[in-house]
Formats: sequence, structure tokens, C-alpha cells
Amino acid sequence: MAFHLHERLAADTYTVQDLALCRVLLMNDSRFPWTILVPRRTGLRDFHEVARADKPTFHAELDLVSDVLKRLSGAHKMNVAALGNMVPQLHVHVIARFEGDAAWPKPVWGQGETVPYEPARAGELIESLRKDLRG
Amino acid sequence: MAFHLHERLAADTYTVQDLALCRVLLMNDSRFPWTILVPRRTGLRDFHEVARADKPTFHAELDLVSDVLKRLSGAHKMNVAALGNMVPQLHVHVIARFEGDAAWPKPVWGQGETVPYEPARAGELIESLRKDLRG
Repeated sequence: MAFHLHERLAADTYTVQDLALCRVLLMNDSRFPWTILVPRRTGLRDFHEVARADKPTFHAELDLVSDVLKRLSGAHKMNVAALGNMVPQLHVHVIARFEGDAAWPKPVWGQGETVPYEPARAGELIESLRKDLRG
Repeated sequence: MAFHLHERLAADTYTVQDLALCRVLLMNDSRFPWTILVPRRTGLRDFHEVARADKPTFHAELDLVSDVLKRLSGAHKMNVAALGNMVPQLHVHVIARFEGDAAWPKPVWGQGETVPYEPARAGELIESLRKDLRG
């Protein structure tokens, strides 16, 4: 079965790029530098369900994106989370957090209103992420 | 430097057991079957900072605890998250979620009031976890 990104994720994000396993998305909320990784496999729901053969790549890509986003953003703290209570397709949030950001110190979900990017600003951030992910 | 569990984590949890890398804790909130894994290393804050040599064990222990807790609890969904905005010591939440639980479908943090376990019930759950983690 071909991989198909869940429509809710597609609606809420920009595509950054496909790594070997995961599609990297940028959440369209300028309050937080916020990426989402989606393994391009069908039928996955929980973090521990990634196939054994894919796990080293999965974990390496999580670490890569977290490291790149932390350096690019200058974040104080990274939040990494696989929740998926509303969108069943396995996706992992990798979010750059700052003391004093719009949700600090709470988790970002459900806090206040989304502030979409100016398209040019999203484009710049996506280009920076692509460049550093190729690193 | 010897590993020392952050006092906030120590106050909020029961100890389940030490795996090869992580201390496994049970959050003292009977509303959710909720474990926390803390790598027994000093100075770690972000998920991606775990030393390369420890990563395979770290990821395997996360998967093990998630799998065991899901089977023991009959959860509909597992939530896995490293946030740490308030407690700087790296710790990973592994939480069994049920449609209709006290926070569903929201994340559990900051939802309502903690309901501590009856000590006997906590003891039973800890014994079940230990048994299954030994496999």
C-alpha cells in the first residue's frame, strides 16, 4: 500500500523534505519552530510499532531533526512527542521551546491560537532546514 | 558523578525498577497507567543528547516499556513524550491512553487533578510491570 499523509497533517503543515524513512513537516504555527516526522510506512500508530529494520533509521532521523532544529532556532529545550490521540497516523513532534514562548512551560498542544507563517518566512525556514538536514 | 533522580520526579512517582540504562518510574496518578523512563546518566536534558553508545539500549527500553504497558493496560493508544520544560533531567513519559479517559483526546499534562493510587493498587501494578519487564 502506498504511503499517504493523513489529511489533517497535510492541512496543518508545510512539507520540508523526505529523509530515508520519514517525511519531515513544518507545522504552520509561527509561535513555535515545530517539525513533525512521519515514517513513510502504512498502518503505524504507536511509537514502538516501527518495524525492527526501520528503527535505527527512525531514531537517527529523530535525533538529526532535533539537533538541526535546536541549532537553527537557538532553542532552550526540545520537546519530542508521539501522541496521536486525534490523528491516528504515527507522527512525532519535534518542537523548539524557549523560556517565555507562547505556551512555556506548558506543552504546546491546545494553548492559544495558531499563528500561521507569512509564506515568505515559512519558505526561508524550510530552506534553512533542508540545507542543514543535508548537512 | 553519581546518578541522582530529580526531587520532583522522586516525589511524584513510585520506582518500578532499574533496567540496563533507565530507571522506570510509575507516576502516582491512578487516572492514567503512566510510566516514566529516566536514563541513569548525569547531565542529560534533551532526547537527542543520549550518548551514541547508549542509544540502542535507550530506544529498546522505551519500546519494551511501551509494549509491556500497552499489553498490561489494554490501552487504545500509547503516548510517548520527552518534554522536560519544568524538570530539566531527561525523562520520557510512556502513558497508556483510553478513549474517554480523564484527558482524552488531549495530552495528560495539566488536565484536572492528580488522583493518587491506593497504595495496594500501586503495589499490584508495580509487581505486574516488574514481572513483564523481566519477560
